[in-house]
Amino acid sequence: MTAPIRIAIAGAMGRMGQTVASLVEAAAGLELVARFDRPGVDGEGLVPVDEALSRADVIIDFTSAAASADLAAKAADRGVALVIGSTGFDDTQIAAIAAAAGKTPIVRAGNFSLGVNLLMGLAAQAARALPAEFDIEVFEAHHSRKVDAPSGTALMLGGAAAEARGQDIAKAAKRARDGIVGERTPGEIGFSVVRGGDIVGDHSVIFAGPEEILTLSHSARSRTLFARGAVVAARWVAGRPAGEYDMQDVLGLKG
Amino acid sequence: MTAPIRIAIAGAMGRMGQTVASLVEAAAGLELVARFDRPGVDGEGLVPVDEALSRADVIIDFTSAAASADLAAKAADRGVALVIGSTGFDDTQIAAIAAAAGKTPIVRAGNFSLGVNLLMGLAAQAARALPAEFDIEVFEAHHSRKVDAPSGTALMLGGAAAEARGQDIAKAAKRARDGIVGERTPGEIGFSVVRGGDIVGDHSVIFAGPEEILTLSHSARSRTLFARGAVVAARWVAGRPAGEYDMQDVLGLKG
Amino acid sequence: MTAPIRIAIAGAMGRMGQTVASLVEAAAGLELVARFDRPGVDGEGLVPVDEALSRADVIIDFTSAAASADLAAKAADRGVALVIGSTGFDDTQIAAIAAAAGKTPIVRAGNFSLGVNLLMGLAAQAARALPAEFDIEVFEAHHSRKVDAPSGTALMLGGAAAEARGQDIAKAAKRARDGIVGERTPGEIGFSVVRGGDIVGDHSVIFAGPEEILTLSHSARSRTLFARGAVVAARWVAGRPAGEYDMQDVLGLKG
Amino acid sequence: MTAPIRIAIAGAMGRMGQTVASLVEAAAGLELVARFDRPGVDGEGLVPVDEALSRADVIIDFTSAAASADLAAKAADRGVALVIGSTGFDDTQIAAIAAAAGKTPIVRAGNFSLGVNLLMGLAAQAARALPAEFDIEVFEAHHSRKVDAPSGTALMLGGAAAEARGQDIAKAAKRARDGIVGERTPGEIGFSVVRGGDIVGDHSVIFAGPEEILTLSHSARSRTLFARGAVVAARWVAGRPAGEYDMQDVLGLKG
Repeated sequence: MTAPIRIAIAGAMGRMGQTVASLVEAAAGLELVARFDRPGVDGEGLVPVDEALSRADVIIDFTSAAASADLAAKAADRGVALVIGSTGFDDTQIAAIAAAAGKTPIVRAGNFSLGVNLLMGLAAQAARALPAEFDIEVFEAHHSRKVDAPSGTALMLGGAAAEARGQDIAKAAKRARDGIVGERTPGEIGFSVVRGGDIVGDHSVIFAGPEEILTLSHSARSRTLFARGAVVAARWVAGRPAGEYDMQDVLGLKG
Repeated sequence: MTAPIRIAIAGAMGRMGQTVASLVEAAAGLELVARFDRPGVDGEGLVPVDEALSRADVIIDFTSAAASADLAAKAADRGVALVIGSTGFDDTQIAAIAAAAGKTPIVRAGNFSLGVNLLMGLAAQAARALPAEFDIEVFEAHHSRKVDAPSGTALMLGGAAAEARGQDIAKAAKRARDGIVGERTPGEIGFSVVRGGDIVGDHSVIFAGPEEILTLSHSARSRTLFARGAVVAARWVAGRPAGEYDMQDVLGLKG
Repeated sequence: MTAPIRIAIAGAMGRMGQTVASLVEAAAGLELVARFDRPGVDGEGLVPVDEALSRADVIIDFTSAAASADLAAKAADRGVALVIGSTGFDDTQIAAIAAAAGKTPIVRAGNFSLGVNLLMGLAAQAARALPAEFDIEVFEAHHSRKVDAPSGTALMLGGAAAEARGQDIAKAAKRARDGIVGERTPGEIGFSVVRGGDIVGDHSVIFAGPEEILTLSHSARSRTLFARGAVVAARWVAGRPAGEYDMQDVLGLKG
Repeated sequence: MTAPIRIAIAGAMGRMGQTVASLVEAAAGLELVARFDRPGVDGEGLVPVDEALSRADVIIDFTSAAASADLAAKAADRGVALVIGSTGFDDTQIAAIAAAAGKTPIVRAGNFSLGVNLLMGLAAQAARALPAEFDIEVFEAHHSRKVDAPSGTALMLGGAAAEARGQDIAKAAKRARDGIVGERTPGEIGFSVVRGGDIVGDHSVIFAGPEEILTLSHSARSRTLFARGAVVAARWVAGRPAGEYDMQDVLGLKG
């Protein structure tokens, strides 16, 4: 019998940290060996970060951009693998993670759901296959407490479509429309946003052509979905060579 | 046998004018007696506006706010009924039409489809029946040549929902979301906009509550739909008392 | 301060029973005074049905048609109010519940969500307002473990639309289409069914007319939704006069 | 300047024949050289089939399975290319077309829209990438005059998904659900059908997994769409080597 993969949880008192912990505890072949959180956060059974690093094969980390960049450096020194679900990294933080990935395997993803990661590939493919007269739009809906718009996942989907058409999403993105905005510019990729209730996360990539519309949609029905994806990533990353990976690698959706 | 209702078409060379004309010609009980357009527009069989006014029982007018306000005054002098599909009226023009409606019956509507007008009533009812924790959002999609956003119909739907909740849509409307916009404000009514291809017009009013979502949607599949609605209105308005009416009156959706 | 309403739970070991119990325990103004289940089902803290009847003001009952009909008779003898979420009643059982409702107030509903009950009223209204050339269809999607099709709620929605058009749903219903079925019969109400994954329950009533479609949709995102509706009903029914009520009464959606 | 491609239209008096003819007349680089129909159908300018065959490079044929199989043999003898949009072929007719395709290039497709043909490829890919716990369902909606259900395109989409999972669609297909059908069988591919109004053709392939749903949808907004696809195919097939092709070949969606 293979020894179980030893998992530690960063941000263990947070909502995602708790959900991930309970999934790890229930999973065959995985062992929850440590839970930690940032200084000042108390909780039963929390250990210092160094202790967690000494016990674990893989750390799952849904915290903040700054905390994850710090943790990556420490994990690299110890050769501990990392699964990062934090978002909003700046260039310095991205460089820190890339440096860490030179020494240890790291999976970083903005969205851990299988469906969204598959959707990204399908949207890129449709963007390549359809002529330019098919206008591309990205729609997303989330709960009323979400503070940013459009969602990171929506921007990622738009980015995948733009890249497939040889466009720069920073230039192509029409992030909002209000007032007399004029006719749609050919090549622009529009974003539209709904906020309300407790919608977990819906995304659509729309290809509106002459007399026909192709729509590729994903609906997440529970936040557990994302925690489960991170656990899949943790299982996958254990024992990999050093390097930076994303969910497309984990899910085998590349090439 | 009843004499047919005599119809004249304003803006007869425009796209809507031509569509309306062909529907009138094909309709039982209606007779196309005159077609006219603004000075400088030539077309076979066009007559001067005065001649059209002298021949017609009802004029159907999809032109511009300014042209419709002028025509309303002339129609009032002659006692000719009017169906107005122009949009974008300012306060002066609205007052001019109201004055004209003191002498002749006028139907004015931003959207002549049966479905949209019914949707407005249903959305108002849902807004009244559902508790305030149900967030209201309005989504619309139109073709890539539409210059304004959100659509007039979307604003009308949001306005009906706001009024039903005792809110002022001018204050409640969140017309676009981009960047770090913060959590949704309770009571706001969000608008989202898709532009692409040749979408004739899709509208949804979304009520996103705790663990459930109610969505009331309309999809127009052809522009002829709106022309047909205007012809229904023309048939209805002939012989009515002077007054200003809308499609809710024509369709019997009030009270 | 008012005394709390005393609630007992039938079928307390079932999935809905447990969900309802935890909601009652968390609710202000309600007290969970007894939990019971059918003979042979063991569980910590269960009491006999007679004891539950002697302690409670209201019993919430998601069990089976037969068990609910029995319980209704007993509750009527004791003057205990009842909220029934069981489905699949035959005529004898319906008569038994009606008899019990002569002595005690009973709320019985096939679906306790606010949104679905509102949808039923809106669908009826649209069916009345739209001309017969608008074809009515009902679509539903549920998880892969659901054994019946179409769902009870879908049939209820179709029934409301049929009644509004003066039709008998038993005759109008086209419950499935497969093969060379011929053109759609005017007036038929078609049902379509998706089964897959863990979809909690989606329903749409579609009005497909000439060049336009009106769609009224509901999506339930969690089963807790139905438990919450039953708790709302329990609060409402306490102290009412004897009689049989439904969720439209509870939610004030009638007249 | 290249000589235009000479096009003849079979079934020229039918609805699709007329639409195709007007598109060919308006298209640069194509010349409408003959229109014919089956014996007994009269129409201005129709020529005998032999005359059409002697004039044309490509024949576009939306007629019937039997007529298309006959025409294929004649076109093969003359080396005239063929675009076939008829459906419902039996094995003998399919063999006849395959034999003809040994001598002349033939494009045969059940659906000529770019979007639907792309959707087929994307659905196959999603079926391969997603684990078996994602249940596959196909939904379609068409106008009230359609006589068969599910649509040929829906069956084609289900077939593509089944094949990608190594399943036989004839066994996997659950073509309708009504009554107490029991839990969903793992691996089954369900079909659901809406009929109403003048819906041109909507198709969705749904992948319902644990806590997430991926939906790939296509909506055709006008029948002209299919005629345009056939004209694209005619342009593509002129001058190709003998062989049987489909729209995936025409659109470059293969490998």
